[in-house]
Amino acid sequence: MALSQQRQEKSKQNRLIETELTHHYLVADKVMQLFQPSSSSASTEAKMNVQTDNLVGDFLSSINTNSDINFNALVETFTDSEVPIYPANFDSYLEYLANNVVNHSINTSSPRFIGHMTSALPCFVRSLAKLMTAMNQNVVKIETAKAFSPYERQALAMMHRLVYNFADEFYTQHVQNNQSTLGILVSGGTAANIIALWCARNKSLYAKNSFAGVEKAGLAAALDYYGYQGAVVIGSELMHYSFDKAADLLGIGTHGLIKIPTNGNNQVDLSALRQAVADCQSKNLHIIAIVGVAGTTDSGNIDSLLDIADIAEAANVHFHVDAAWGGPLIFSEQHRQKLAGIERADSVTIDGHKQLYLPMGIGMVFMREPQLASAIEKNASYTMRKDSFDLGKRALEGSRPGMALFLHAGLHIIGLKGYEFLIDAGIEKTQYMAARINAMPEFELLSEPDINLLLYRYIPQSFRELAVKKQLTESDNQQINIFNECLQKAQRQAGRSFISRTTKTITYLDKEISVTALRAVIANPLTTQDDIDAVLNDQIEIALELSSSDSLEVNQSQ
Amino acid sequence: MALSQQRQEKSKQNRLIETELTHHYLVADKVMQLFQPSSSSASTEAKMNVQTDNLVGDFLSSINTNSDINFNALVETFTDSEVPIYPANFDSYLEYLANNVVNHSINTSSPRFIGHMTSALPCFVRSLAKLMTAMNQNVVKIETAKAFSPYERQALAMMHRLVYNFADEFYTQHVQNNQSTLGILVSGGTAANIIALWCARNKSLYAKNSFAGVEKAGLAAALDYYGYQGAVVIGSELMHYSFDKAADLLGIGTHGLIKIPTNGNNQVDLSALRQAVADCQSKNLHIIAIVGVAGTTDSGNIDSLLDIADIAEAANVHFHVDAAWGGPLIFSEQHRQKLAGIERADSVTIDGHKQLYLPMGIGMVFMREPQLASAIEKNASYTMRKDSFDLGKRALEGSRPGMALFLHAGLHIIGLKGYEFLIDAGIEKTQYMAARINAMPEFELLSEPDINLLLYRYIPQSFRELAVKKQLTESDNQQINIFNECLQKAQRQAGRSFISRTTKTITYLDKEISVTALRAVIANPLTTQDDIDAVLNDQIEIALELSSSDSLEVNQSQ
Repeated sequence: MALSQQRQEKSKQNRLIETELTHHYLVADKVMQLFQPSSSSASTEAKMNVQTDNLVGDFLSSINTNSDINFNALVETFTDSEVPIYPANFDSYLEYLANNVVNHSINTSSPRFIGHMTSALPCFVRSLAKLMTAMNQNVVKIETAKAFSPYERQALAMMHRLVYNFADEFYTQHVQNNQSTLGILVSGGTAANIIALWCARNKSLYAKNSFAGVEKAGLAAALDYYGYQGAVVIGSELMHYSFDKAADLLGIGTHGLIKIPTNGNNQVDLSALRQAVADCQSKNLHIIAIVGVAGTTDSGNIDSLLDIADIAEAANVHFHVDAAWGGPLIFSEQHRQKLAGIERADSVTIDGHKQLYLPMGIGMVFMREPQLASAIEKNASYTMRKDSFDLGKRALEGSRPGMALFLHAGLHIIGLKGYEFLIDAGIEKTQYMAARINAMPEFELLSEPDINLLLYRYIPQSFRELAVKKQLTESDNQQINIFNECLQKAQRQAGRSFISRTTKTITYLDKEISVTALRAVIANPLTTQDDIDAVLNDQIEIALELSSSDSLEVNQSQ
Repeated sequence: MALSQQRQEKSKQNRLIETELTHHYLVADKVMQLFQPSSSSASTEAKMNVQTDNLVGDFLSSINTNSDINFNALVETFTDSEVPIYPANFDSYLEYLANNVVNHSINTSSPRFIGHMTSALPCFVRSLAKLMTAMNQNVVKIETAKAFSPYERQALAMMHRLVYNFADEFYTQHVQNNQSTLGILVSGGTAANIIALWCARNKSLYAKNSFAGVEKAGLAAALDYYGYQGAVVIGSELMHYSFDKAADLLGIGTHGLIKIPTNGNNQVDLSALRQAVADCQSKNLHIIAIVGVAGTTDSGNIDSLLDIADIAEAANVHFHVDAAWGGPLIFSEQHRQKLAGIERADSVTIDGHKQLYLPMGIGMVFMREPQLASAIEKNASYTMRKDSFDLGKRALEGSRPGMALFLHAGLHIIGLKGYEFLIDAGIEKTQYMAARINAMPEFELLSEPDINLLLYRYIPQSFRELAVKKQLTESDNQQINIFNECLQKAQRQAGRSFISRTTKTITYLDKEISVTALRAVIANPLTTQDDIDAVLNDQIEIALELSSSDSLEVNQSQ
């Protein structure tokens, strides 16, 4: 290589190194600016806040439930898989977000989005979300959550008291006793249900004599030691799918999740339940728990908890109530009796992000017996020592955020009477919707609502007479099913209003048939009778369009 | 009862009913105001924002790590267990929060809080926390997370690509393919580790001929069918305690978690690992997975992943890497080779809320094989149908928040080079701290740092000569342990700076002894060399005070 060429190469290399260095310092500078505490970079953060608040305002003020972008087209915008090399500006990222993500997100707070268990939230949770993130407490241990640990315990104790209503002395003794666990805050109802069954399994297959217990020795050894042929969990066929996850995870196997038929009102059939318990006992199968459902996911029905409590008590089996949805009825004087028997449950799941109107990520499991959760306790040398106050020692999760902020705030800023109002209003509006459906020839109500969920279907014109006379054939019903599936998808795609769908087995002319049902969940406080009418009218309009179009193609991909 | 009395009673009753009604309307009014979309109640929410932002600013601008309130006194302020009846004003609740909770929370972003894996966060996450909460997407299904589902998949694919670096075609094929799972976003590293072992267990004990597989038939039946004597997971004795939880949950039992001794550098002893694998095979124990640790919780050391990959491959066993802490070293050209072998793992855990500087609640598990997670798939009639795009069908959790917002934003606003800078800077500062400790007679470094965690201890004056000469007796070491425990607690209580502590087994004069170690985690970008000096000087000062005080009472309760 000629000298001049070498020099050129060298100089090019130097320039590259220089550029590299400049980039390095620019990157370092840019990143460090992001971390400066807010007082020293107040203007940067204030600007971010204003921009984000504008975006939030725009998003929340829409009445539509979603944009009508085609889902496959949307997906195509998220295919790049390389991490960008250099830091982007917040402004440009936020603009990207607004156009590509926020614009095509679901407006779960729309008063006409009444198809899932997600609705509008009170405004204070938005301010508090920022506070929680800014505080960045890690509730796994007091060294990263000094005030938050007892603060969370207090909020959980308040909920426990609503469920179990023990005497003052009980709460005085246990609320802040680090050897007691009244409840565990988790990321959702699924984790709550898993923890409940985990405790039940470990407590019932405990260490004894030479046997170290299921926790240490495992399930196969436990069944062997105790002489059981297998282990099961028993509950209604309408149990949430989280119990399938729990049965799988816990080593029981989903076949060990015994699903009992339900009556016409979607409640577990009590005699079938009694029979199943007797069968398991005679087959020498260990019953880990009997599950009562307080608010089925499909239609909100509540099992007869008092009767299940009796059955569980007689069999000396852990009684768990999944009240993820229905639990907050305890706030209502008028509707609380629907949960009668919940106070006899050994464990109860309630979700904060459902009918407590709190952000996603708040599941709770409550324990009647404050020592139950010791069955799953774990310790480590660097944290969560046995006698510590660290909440992480009895938990499925490790590090976790201070979500108790929302729960504690909700209990105070909405209060008992506030929650009562919300619960009562939702049920009242559901009764209105049921009455409207019954009055409209276009629809058929599939079962009377227990609380604030509703199943119904659209009956195309040509089937209405037969439907009224109860003379639909199996093939008629299949056609109606296809129509309702198309209707639900078309309504979702149009984005003006939203109702979900499910599959329900009903008895029709003494035969069990599978019916595609439209499913309404009326929890949004902003939903008015007018909105309900609008959603039903939207469906009628779409149905007419569908009927007049040539083909009814069902997109099977979603 | 006299008529006048009756009238009085009646009128009193009417008044009560009236008051009750007034209260009812007041409550309804107050609650409904909280739910109005921000445009119609802009001023209310704007006021909340300003008040909250002020509180956030105050909190973040403090340099102290925490208030010096006595923990028991603090706990006493959270003993009331009754839900307030009427809604409180946001103002008064925020004031309560400020005085009772925020004031006594841990300033995890203080540059002198260098004792846990929680540190300062970039400011954009605070704005985005509000956006995420406002959007209230539920990522379990596309009907409540239309754009968020492919958006989350994209962010996970970017991380997957950093770990596995497959060819373009691989990502083109799988990024948005609803039958492929490159990663699962969960609430934390514990859930991520549990999911990894859950997949490994279900995949290895699969359905075959008449056997339905462990998922359906349970663990006892699976071991029976395949003729195994038991099931185990093997890894270093320094595995995170989440593996104890996983072993317990999955029905293996914690005794089935085989913990292999480590070498002087806290890495799993490879020949002992090989021996354990051979032992299990000869005992006909089913090895569900071999775990490699990439960043031990105590001291950040990384197992020799390449060697473990070889061992796992030879044994045909699932290889999982817990890189919850150390994973982000993949962003650093300089340090990436410490993770060599991670690309051969069948599954990898990485936490977003650790070294990606994102809020609590972001765990991730990545899968080499995009179909692995089908081993845990669950479906339901109302959602997550088999061919759907719903992310909830392969997950431990059900409903969950759109935390992908933070991950996606971090990858763009910090970028590859930004994360590289953060990782490199943390390791550099740790080397500075190690050098300072080595240079100061007051301290003893307990092991050379691999990355950015550091174990050391304080040596009281009277032991220093013996310590240097390596002549400390067992009783000397015990006294030094007690001193270090007191020192750590006193430092924490004073609240000017923070270092955590752990228990470490070291070889001292050919004997294994248990040592109380001070543990530094240097991840906060705001921490300077001056801060590190200040933390060490704070310890020296506190140690001198302790030495001069009459008694060294160790409070065993925390």
